[in-house]
Amino acid sequence: MRTVIAIDVGGTSIKAARVAESGEVLDRHRVATPVSAGAGAVVATIREVAAWLHDADVVAAGVVVPGIVDPAAGVARYAANLGWRDEPLVALLQSDLALPVRIDNDVRGAGLAERSVGRARGVPDCMIVMLGTGISAVIVTGGQPMWGGAGMAGEVGHVCVVPNGEPCPCGQRGCLERYASGAAVARRYGALTGAALPAEEVVARQAVDPAAAQVWAEATDALATVLAQCTLVVDPSLVVLAGGLAIAGEALRAPVAAALTTRLPWRTPPELAMSTLGADVGVHGAALLAWSAAPPAG
Amino acid sequence: MRTVIAIDVGGTSIKAARVAESGEVLDRHRVATPVSAGAGAVVATIREVAAWLHDADVVAAGVVVPGIVDPAAGVARYAANLGWRDEPLVALLQSDLALPVRIDNDVRGAGLAERSVGRARGVPDCMIVMLGTGISAVIVTGGQPMWGGAGMAGEVGHVCVVPNGEPCPCGQRGCLERYASGAAVARRYGALTGAALPAEEVVARQAVDPAAAQVWAEATDALATVLAQCTLVVDPSLVVLAGGLAIAGEALRAPVAAALTTRLPWRTPPELAMSTLGADVGVHGAALLAWSAAPPAG
Repeated sequence: MRTVIAIDVGGTSIKAARVAESGEVLDRHRVATPVSAGAGAVVATIREVAAWLHDADVVAAGVVVPGIVDPAAGVARYAANLGWRDEPLVALLQSDLALPVRIDNDVRGAGLAERSVGRARGVPDCMIVMLGTGISAVIVTGGQPMWGGAGMAGEVGHVCVVPNGEPCPCGQRGCLERYASGAAVARRYGALTGAALPAEEVVARQAVDPAAAQVWAEATDALATVLAQCTLVVDPSLVVLAGGLAIAGEALRAPVAAALTTRLPWRTPPELAMSTLGADVGVHGAALLAWSAAPPAG
Repeated sequence: MRTVIAIDVGGTSIKAARVAESGEVLDRHRVATPVSAGAGAVVATIREVAAWLHDADVVAAGVVVPGIVDPAAGVARYAANLGWRDEPLVALLQSDLALPVRIDNDVRGAGLAERSVGRARGVPDCMIVMLGTGISAVIVTGGQPMWGGAGMAGEVGHVCVVPNGEPCPCGQRGCLERYASGAAVARRYGALTGAALPAEEVVARQAVDPAAAQVWAEATDALATVLAQCTLVVDPSLVVLAGGLAIAGEALRAPVAAALTTRLPWRTPPELAMSTLGADVGVHGAALLAWSAAPPAG
């Protein structure tokens, strides 16, 4: 059976697998991303993981990475959390594996996965919002993902939601990411209480912990503010929430949906749905990239 | 020489002309829109104006109207300021003129004109923002105007810029239209001073009148806030400001461009330009619609 190698490079771990044309994930690996050892070590680990997965059935490889990527050149341009610049990942892996290789940004990869095998399948006008360490989105209009004049469409994490709010490393204040990312929820809860809890535990403590409830209400409200703006500007029929924070499920969806309805009194808000691909969204995106490069069967 | 009939229906006046394939405007008419006489009178006036312009050289007609339009059905669905609902304008004019007729929304018509013969020509990723009684935009991505899941993309006038700000007829508070439309500038200046001045005179009085300066600064700041959000979400290379308020020219462009740069510290802001089509933008849009329906020459 033909398979592809799919690698999802994150700031914490590198997830990799062989994936069948059916979408079945066959051979999972997960290794820590050696961020502290530098960009060279991260690249070496990606190459090593790909080599483990390589066998005679493999027909192509796909990689999704964070940050700025040039898919046409096959180069990972920049990722602050990985410390790399202009890594020619496609050339390196093609040379190692003697296979066609494709690379893209993790958010676009997730968008591809959601559109191809996930909740956004068959919806020509939709948004897939990735809620992780940061927040960004893939916007699909008329069946086509939006690229933008500078290839920067979908940077919703830096929309200002609180005028003169919390400072953001981008240089602005009050950006969505400072309130509604996983990192922000943990940090803001810590600032209120002095306790270090990951975002998912803050969400779980809502009912019993007023500080958790406050931080989470501010997070979901900020997200609804930006989704209302996006609805007015790009008018999606469906918004899919994906990424690490989306494991909160209905605890995320319900308050955001309610606030979105309140903010769009004169029109029907878009349907709001949670990703069904969970933590595999990156691997599925990488596999779909690989299949797009695979030679025809036969 | 072949020409088309082009009709731009506004809340104040109906502008109509014959337009050559070169874009030359040949035979202008302008009549008051009989809003107070009801929707039937407005429709009758449109038909009458079209009949005046009809001659043997005319090969098609195009009409742009405010509000919600169904171009495929040829029906003007709804316009609050004209009081009409489901007016079958294409069928009526086709019957009157025995010519192909097309209709569209005035904002999409302006977008078509700016993209075809105006400032946005040849720019695949851009936004054309119409600043008139209300505010809305045409967003162009990858060379295609964005429609949206419900045909409502570009409703930037109802993006909230001032949390808990001025109430808007849409049911929300603090919408862009309440600060940066021509009507808002006049109304807000009146509320501060008691004086009734049209928006263009408020702009002209900035240097000598602190109330005018304040209202205009709040208007340009609100517009920059929304354009910064739109840049993050859809990433246009160019934003064209058009419509009645755009006659303010550099008094509008310069402060909005400066505020946009401040709000996008980590990326290059889109180029900001004023429409060069002025008050003819609607007529040009209607003419382009008509040409798209015209039979081939010969």
